[in-house]
Amino acid sequence: MTLTEIGKRAKETAGVLGILSSDKKNEGLRAAAAALLEGEEDILTANQEDVIQATINGMSAGMIDRLELTPSRIEAMADGLISVAVLEDPVGEVISMKARPNGLTIGQKRVPMGVIGIIYEARPNVTADAFGLCFKSGNCVILKGGSDALESNKAIVKCLRAGLKNAGFPEDSVQLITDTDRAVTKEFMRLHDYVDVLIPRGGAGLIRSVVENSTVPVIETGTGNCHIFVDETADYKMALDIIFNAKTQRIGVCNACESLVIHRNIAEEFLPLLKARLDEKQVEVRADEEACRIVPAFVPAAAEDWGTEYLDYILSLKLVDSIDEAIAHINRYNTKHSEAIITSDYANAQKFLNEIDAAAVYVNASTRFTDGFEFGFGAEIGISTQKLHARGPMGLKELTTTKYIIYGNGQVRP
Amino acid sequence: MTLTEIGKRAKETAGVLGILSSDKKNEGLRAAAAALLEGEEDILTANQEDVIQATINGMSAGMIDRLELTPSRIEAMADGLISVAVLEDPVGEVISMKARPNGLTIGQKRVPMGVIGIIYEARPNVTADAFGLCFKSGNCVILKGGSDALESNKAIVKCLRAGLKNAGFPEDSVQLITDTDRAVTKEFMRLHDYVDVLIPRGGAGLIRSVVENSTVPVIETGTGNCHIFVDETADYKMALDIIFNAKTQRIGVCNACESLVIHRNIAEEFLPLLKARLDEKQVEVRADEEACRIVPAFVPAAAEDWGTEYLDYILSLKLVDSIDEAIAHINRYNTKHSEAIITSDYANAQKFLNEIDAAAVYVNASTRFTDGFEFGFGAEIGISTQKLHARGPMGLKELTTTKYIIYGNGQVRP
Repeated sequence: MTLTEIGKRAKETAGVLGILSSDKKNEGLRAAAAALLEGEEDILTANQEDVIQATINGMSAGMIDRLELTPSRIEAMADGLISVAVLEDPVGEVISMKARPNGLTIGQKRVPMGVIGIIYEARPNVTADAFGLCFKSGNCVILKGGSDALESNKAIVKCLRAGLKNAGFPEDSVQLITDTDRAVTKEFMRLHDYVDVLIPRGGAGLIRSVVENSTVPVIETGTGNCHIFVDETADYKMALDIIFNAKTQRIGVCNACESLVIHRNIAEEFLPLLKARLDEKQVEVRADEEACRIVPAFVPAAAEDWGTEYLDYILSLKLVDSIDEAIAHINRYNTKHSEAIITSDYANAQKFLNEIDAAAVYVNASTRFTDGFEFGFGAEIGISTQKLHARGPMGLKELTTTKYIIYGNGQVRP
Repeated sequence: MTLTEIGKRAKETAGVLGILSSDKKNEGLRAAAAALLEGEEDILTANQEDVIQATINGMSAGMIDRLELTPSRIEAMADGLISVAVLEDPVGEVISMKARPNGLTIGQKRVPMGVIGIIYEARPNVTADAFGLCFKSGNCVILKGGSDALESNKAIVKCLRAGLKNAGFPEDSVQLITDTDRAVTKEFMRLHDYVDVLIPRGGAGLIRSVVENSTVPVIETGTGNCHIFVDETADYKMALDIIFNAKTQRIGVCNACESLVIHRNIAEEFLPLLKARLDEKQVEVRADEEACRIVPAFVPAAAEDWGTEYLDYILSLKLVDSIDEAIAHINRYNTKHSEAIITSDYANAQKFLNEIDAAAVYVNASTRFTDGFEFGFGAEIGISTQKLHARGPMGLKELTTTKYIIYGNGQVRP
């Protein structure tokens, strides 16, 4: 099938999904979940093909672990679909409705986007997750997964489609692009006649490529060069706990802390405590000259450290003279993801919240909370680091748009 | 100045504008308005240069009228800035704030976008209007106007900047790109390191070029192939009044009606009445075969008529057997702008509102109401026909984004 055919089918199907009731959509999700469990053997067989090929290709053990499926991981995918069925459906909510002086009643109603494209590199479970969130929000989805997981993704999508079809839902609610040619991926990014929004999920390279090439509106997700600023009035214990959590609780994620900014007035006291705490996990600290003088075990930072998302047991560290200097530094080097201040000072807390340019700004808490589940959305399709449409964690609501509905009784414009 | 320098200045200034109080921003708008009036003579002189050049270039009289400024038009620009000062400031509103089970309080706060780019072809008054809306919403604006109005735009921006500067505001709140080279315009579209959103205002060609070339997130505005469906239960007088208004009240605008869809059951009765009414303004009707049989004075429609935005005293007309056929036809050919049904039937009104895919869907009213002022926003920067971020008329609120503000007391992620 050509991409245009895939796009046409999606667009046609979007018209059907867009007006399904929540009850019907939940029925479809449960049917798809059941089909995943029934297809377990086929999915595992296909996944083994991917794993064998990845081993031949020399993929690292960690990456193979992310790729490999087990009966319990397939069960978790099915459970994920059921848990999306339980969530509140955002579609149909009328956000506002007001009468105009001329008697027109103008309302703004939440409706599905239509067709959502998702390009991802990650684990095969994203295939089922992304389908579930799009389906629940009344959207068709076109998936383009990584070539390493192609056979697994094909098997998963086959099950989802069969489950939908048997339950009387359009199987084209979810389609997978199976051509791994890069030219096809680029063509997908230019399918704006059929795709309403494109969400890339993956590393910085993938996201850059989508932003560069796409004519479909894009929601940028992902990279996080997240900072924690320790103000001079910070509670040291709180600061140490939060830094330790934000850096080491899970290192490979976008909301992990990558850089510390410390008020110079507390450096002599605080840095040795910090060193001791980070040593528990052998975290390497790349610090500016003065900090290295205070703690000689710190590694001197190079200029490129300030802008680096390590995703590793490494942190950069800079001393500053004031909150203004801290804010300027963070706004210069951050990726607009998540930033935190640790402080006891009311004015500085408010100033940081107001002046930091990021999707999520914290006072006295770990940056690791930037997450759809932690924010109470019950789901997450990604974390937007752009300003258009959605900013921060995106749940079901962020997969919808609005339309104005206007009730008249013959009004014409004077 | 290079585009990168312009971008850097805008980004720096955005940090200043983003935290100004409403009172301060209103003061800036009033200062800019006063400066426009003071600079009247310079603006008129510059505008005459543009008008003379346009005359030499053979511009039509209608276009020259749009280009030409008069003392009263300059006064209207200044009044426009004052009226924006009176509007409510969307920045700083906390849309929601909830406590999480772990004690975190998570709020979502409206903040400026940062730097807004506007590429426009239209009249020079857009220069002042766009500045006013961006400034009030705390955004820096970089303007790229049409080359026909270059001298006028330069003079207007010079006044605005001088007014801001004299009142103690950063003059780089508004910058104009004066290089008319097309390569520069393309470079502007790729300035995503500095520009947060790009809004093209103009014809279909301009908008297509921006969508094709931009790496900055774009809000598509504009083209409207708007339909009115006359259901079999329609009140004929209401239908005729609305069609006449939507087609002829102003022909060159995106919310004008371009196509009629009429239920076949009423065609014999309704079409002659329609013909008589549209004859008052010599509207040409390009109709399908059966409609032409009923009213021989109708012109046979070609296939391309269904997708054409005439912006003229021309309408296409198609007969259908059912509301489903009407909806399918409209969803196929519309540009997702504004669509109306004229009906007395409850179920059909609801069905049309639900199933039509457009920014604004009307029951028993003219499509001409799709407009920021008519919707009660008090202002309009354009009408979005895309689904991401904003859909339909865009006022001050649509020039903002949100950020999550999170108040903690030491929370770490388990």
